[in-house]
Amino acid sequence: MDFVSKHIVEPGQSVKLKSLETEPQGPFESKAEARAFTDQMVGKLCELQYRLHVEGRQSLLVILQAPDAAGKDGVIRKVLGRMNTQGVRTYPFKVPTEIERAHDFLWRVHQCTPGAGQISIFNRSHYEDVLVVRVEDLVPKSVWSKRYEMINQFEALLAERGTRILKFYLHISSGEQLERFKERLDVPAKHWKLNLSDYRAREKGAKYREAYEDAFRKCSTKDAPWFVIPADKKWYRDAAVSAIVCETLKEMDPQLPKVDIDLAEVRRAYEHEKAELQRELKGQGKS
Amino acid sequence: MDFVSKHIVEPGQSVKLKSLETEPQGPFESKAEARAFTDQMVGKLCELQYRLHVEGRQSLLVILQAPDAAGKDGVIRKVLGRMNTQGVRTYPFKVPTEIERAHDFLWRVHQCTPGAGQISIFNRSHYEDVLVVRVEDLVPKSVWSKRYEMINQFEALLAERGTRILKFYLHISSGEQLERFKERLDVPAKHWKLNLSDYRAREKGAKYREAYEDAFRKCSTKDAPWFVIPADKKWYRDAAVSAIVCETLKEMDPQLPKVDIDLAEVRRAYEHEKAELQRELKGQGKS
Repeated sequence: MDFVSKHIVEPGQSVKLKSLETEPQGPFESKAEARAFTDQMVGKLCELQYRLHVEGRQSLLVILQAPDAAGKDGVIRKVLGRMNTQGVRTYPFKVPTEIERAHDFLWRVHQCTPGAGQISIFNRSHYEDVLVVRVEDLVPKSVWSKRYEMINQFEALLAERGTRILKFYLHISSGEQLERFKERLDVPAKHWKLNLSDYRAREKGAKYREAYEDAFRKCSTKDAPWFVIPADKKWYRDAAVSAIVCETLKEMDPQLPKVDIDLAEVRRAYEHEKAELQRELKGQGKS
Repeated sequence: MDFVSKHIVEPGQSVKLKSLETEPQGPFESKAEARAFTDQMVGKLCELQYRLHVEGRQSLLVILQAPDAAGKDGVIRKVLGRMNTQGVRTYPFKVPTEIERAHDFLWRVHQCTPGAGQISIFNRSHYEDVLVVRVEDLVPKSVWSKRYEMINQFEALLAERGTRILKFYLHISSGEQLERFKERLDVPAKHWKLNLSDYRAREKGAKYREAYEDAFRKCSTKDAPWFVIPADKKWYRDAAVSAIVCETLKEMDPQLPKVDIDLAEVRRAYEHEKAELQRELKGQGKS
């Protein structure tokens, strides 16, 4: 199945979240089948990430946005975080610190963009500055409304330097979200996560959807597309994200460096060194 | 088995690498048994790292040093990198960049030390500045000889702020190292890694051992001990490192936050929200 074309928001496309399914339709007959597919994708991801890292020319930025409990942490733990940490770094963006607030809204994320050969994963991102900031009225509309174009130019800047950008919105239904909050009540080890305000999320749900829909329409670009991933079933969510990241890395087609060395010479160096070592060991045995 | 006391370098202890085994002796009857043990340790590591992260009070810094091909990357891929990337970051330190060289030798590592709740893994570290820098004569002895105490004070600074430090030297025999270089010859996909200078490593082997032995003796402290891990068998190496990190995190004993919320109130909020949602869905069904 082509998960990319199924879930991509085309540039300029208007998306109504309420009309998009949160349950999977995918090609999977069962959860087990989807999990096996994801494992296979993760294997390929690891291989492609290795090539990207060794090639040292291109970069990948994966942005995760979603309501609480929709599974950003799960996607990182079960999919993206399984790539080799030496070339993949995860950045959770929380409420801005004092230093961060003393700068423009792109300052803190810019520092975390991936260098050549690297992958960055953003758990929340600069999109919060046109989402929570807009819904909670933290800055006036005259300020946040200019940010979409700033974001587009910022992402074009990264793309121009060789960074592919994938932006995932994990789309969960209010009912499923509520049940996930409820699970925290049932497991004592999760009690510390309980928060009464979670149960009032629905109040602002429509405003958040509207803010997301604007971000999708204004900021889904060829170089940095948005994807809306049905996320009520964790196994569908993981399968879709892994497939889309994998497809993107395949397209980027990272190459191992050309070999520019005389293999025969290396072989001779090996034989010589081995003989030396054996002589050394023999000498130690005699002494 | 107590891997900590078996492999630790006690403060002030003189270690002769040549006299330390590179083959495992551990409690394992087979490779499979060691791998199963490591998997079990990694499971515990993940759990403890989660608690450390949520607690948000203490930090852990793991430093890996070793000759080429001794397995730093392997330990990261198979053990340390399997913890959740959201709280664990890996930093490979390569030849210093121009900007890094424009600062003191601790500047670049200081920026990568773990904050509260975080774990940093250093693939190579500030110890290169008393190892390769010393052996290759990159700065005069009057400069590098002062660095041991600077390192000790730097690590004490981190410890004082709540960071436990574990420093691992992966101890591999020249013979095993040579065979690992040879493997690269046999696998075309690894040809890009071939380097003739690898086969001359033994030339400077004695000088490197001496530099390491000095670093162990001068910089193994209570707060930041060195461990010499036999690394000819990858499965022993992984088992020992995972056990020592696990033991350390257990000692740190991170605690989940106390629950300071009225569970009955949360339960009422849940029931209320659920009823509201059902009313909403019913309304949509009618319209």
